[in-house]
Amino acid sequence: MKIGGVSYRSIWVNDNGWSVHIFDQRKLPWELDVVELKTPQDAAVAIKEMWTRGAPLLAMTGAYGLALALKEDPSDDNLESSYAMLLATRPTAVNLKWALDRMKAEVKSYSGLDRIAAAYALAGRLCDEDVATNEAIGEHGLSLISQAHKIDTTRPVNILTHCNAGWLATVDYGTATSPIYRAHDAGIPVHVWVDETRPRNQGALLTAYELAEHGVPHTVICDNAGGLLMREGKVDMCIVGTDRVTRNGDVCNKIGTYLKALAAYDNDVPFYVALPLSTFDTGLESGLQIPIEERDQQEVTHIDGLAPDGTLSRVQLTKSQAANPAFDVTPARLITAYITEKGLREGAHALQNLHQAA
Amino acid sequence: MKIGGVSYRSIWVNDNGWSVHIFDQRKLPWELDVVELKTPQDAAVAIKEMWTRGAPLLAMTGAYGLALALKEDPSDDNLESSYAMLLATRPTAVNLKWALDRMKAEVKSYSGLDRIAAAYALAGRLCDEDVATNEAIGEHGLSLISQAHKIDTTRPVNILTHCNAGWLATVDYGTATSPIYRAHDAGIPVHVWVDETRPRNQGALLTAYELAEHGVPHTVICDNAGGLLMREGKVDMCIVGTDRVTRNGDVCNKIGTYLKALAAYDNDVPFYVALPLSTFDTGLESGLQIPIEERDQQEVTHIDGLAPDGTLSRVQLTKSQAANPAFDVTPARLITAYITEKGLREGAHALQNLHQAA
Repeated sequence: MKIGGVSYRSIWVNDNGWSVHIFDQRKLPWELDVVELKTPQDAAVAIKEMWTRGAPLLAMTGAYGLALALKEDPSDDNLESSYAMLLATRPTAVNLKWALDRMKAEVKSYSGLDRIAAAYALAGRLCDEDVATNEAIGEHGLSLISQAHKIDTTRPVNILTHCNAGWLATVDYGTATSPIYRAHDAGIPVHVWVDETRPRNQGALLTAYELAEHGVPHTVICDNAGGLLMREGKVDMCIVGTDRVTRNGDVCNKIGTYLKALAAYDNDVPFYVALPLSTFDTGLESGLQIPIEERDQQEVTHIDGLAPDGTLSRVQLTKSQAANPAFDVTPARLITAYITEKGLREGAHALQNLHQAA
Repeated sequence: MKIGGVSYRSIWVNDNGWSVHIFDQRKLPWELDVVELKTPQDAAVAIKEMWTRGAPLLAMTGAYGLALALKEDPSDDNLESSYAMLLATRPTAVNLKWALDRMKAEVKSYSGLDRIAAAYALAGRLCDEDVATNEAIGEHGLSLISQAHKIDTTRPVNILTHCNAGWLATVDYGTATSPIYRAHDAGIPVHVWVDETRPRNQGALLTAYELAEHGVPHTVICDNAGGLLMREGKVDMCIVGTDRVTRNGDVCNKIGTYLKALAAYDNDVPFYVALPLSTFDTGLESGLQIPIEERDQQEVTHIDGLAPDGTLSRVQLTKSQAANPAFDVTPARLITAYITEKGLREGAHALQNLHQAA
């Protein structure tokens, strides 16, 4: 996607083919800071300290971290210890483990310089696969936006999204945002309602930044506002990403997603979940089985923002204790469709409508 | 209610019987600043600049503002001009106009010192009426909390509230909070989930402060979290206030209320609206007719908080444009009951349940 008219991915290798670059996303949207990862330790810090974020992008940072490690020392010992070191940065990140496992399996049969080359080549291919997946999600989602546009061609299609399932969470295009960028680039007028997404405000900070830099019209709203906007007919569809979808179709995503799905259902607004098929967790029957991470309450009681003097500052918002559950589960019955790289999969809500119509 | 063990109202006259006191609520919870209103102009500034807030409390500030004006000059001319000056501070505030009208009608038949005395006496009576109304709301709401407690006496009753319909918005007790304080004072263990209530965070700032000072256990949460908590069975009931209820029972309240009502309905959590009967607006048939105020987008794009150096500071949260609708409308079908000073009025949701059970 574009920043100031220049196309970027969220992770890339420079011209000499060795050093890896990412954005320090903690500084966005206030500052665009490109960071060079020179060592596996750099990659580990970038993952742990959230310079980079989003399940797919974390996985790619891990993969390149392993390539950087092998460039220093392609021995079996270093392969094993670097694998373990990188995995330990986020022990619960499924995608990170998946990428590191693929890397290890691939490079095992090589040694020396060949192993280094194989590592870089696979990390690059994993990135390209992610981009291709997201492009395909965009293509299938485009059909939904295009249909909505045909209903009334005199105004933009209004799309509400929650959190950041954008290109800054992936290598390019994003998941929830991919259909939006695709539609915008295809000349379909779109306007995005961006939930600020408390407590970490990834919507107001990252999604809004992405859309602004790529030139997509958008408006930031408090998480409280979406229900009213849907009642007023100002939302044509919701598109969100997801961290995990269980076998019955329940969707685990950033806290607050469930409330928007309820409002969409109540107002006959289609509610779409965009995801790579790999996000379907066939090991769990329903969302009731998903443990919900409780994060540091300081994320609720304090907030970072830009002070009038241009520095990033933290202010306290309450004197009381806070709770901070990070995710919620949206029951499958509220989902209209899942937008995957292999096409649309109808959700329980859509199926229910079909049954009612029949 | 109590602050640091001392009982306060949110507006009061000092011992000499003339000067009026309020809190500068803009500084809460960080600083408890009692302001003396010496002139009608002081009262007007306090209303306009939001030192004081909440429909009932604004009305009382206006009433005492007129008393202060008459103390300076009890003439008919000054009565008229001060009435107009105070009304102009918030031309759309229904309660303020109601209080000023009652004041004017009452003092008209008096002159000189008698008019001044009549003005102070009525302003005091209006305050006492507000307190009595809220006490009665608390008494009726208490029965609901008490019933919930009997279902499981081994744990606190968990109550979720949105925004601040607390004593800081009224003269004492509040509306939504009145049953909570009443239950707490009666020895029923309660715990309150306090929605922070973006964009102005009246929950995290004011409701949390009230509850903390009165000793009521509570936890601040992001507005996004309530749905999950209800799914997890951690909310026994919701109680909110309202700005206006239309003839069909639709509830206009702070933006985000509708989303919580949807979640409560989806999880069989009772959703109660606490209000004085005067808040029923019989002039409007349904909530669809209520115009929604769009406020300054800076309330969304910027936020105030306490900087590490102890000063109140404002930081910017996004570089994008924002929309800021202040209220939403919760359809009557989602309301379990209205808690009024004359008792409980069953809501459409409760009626529907009864029909289904029959």
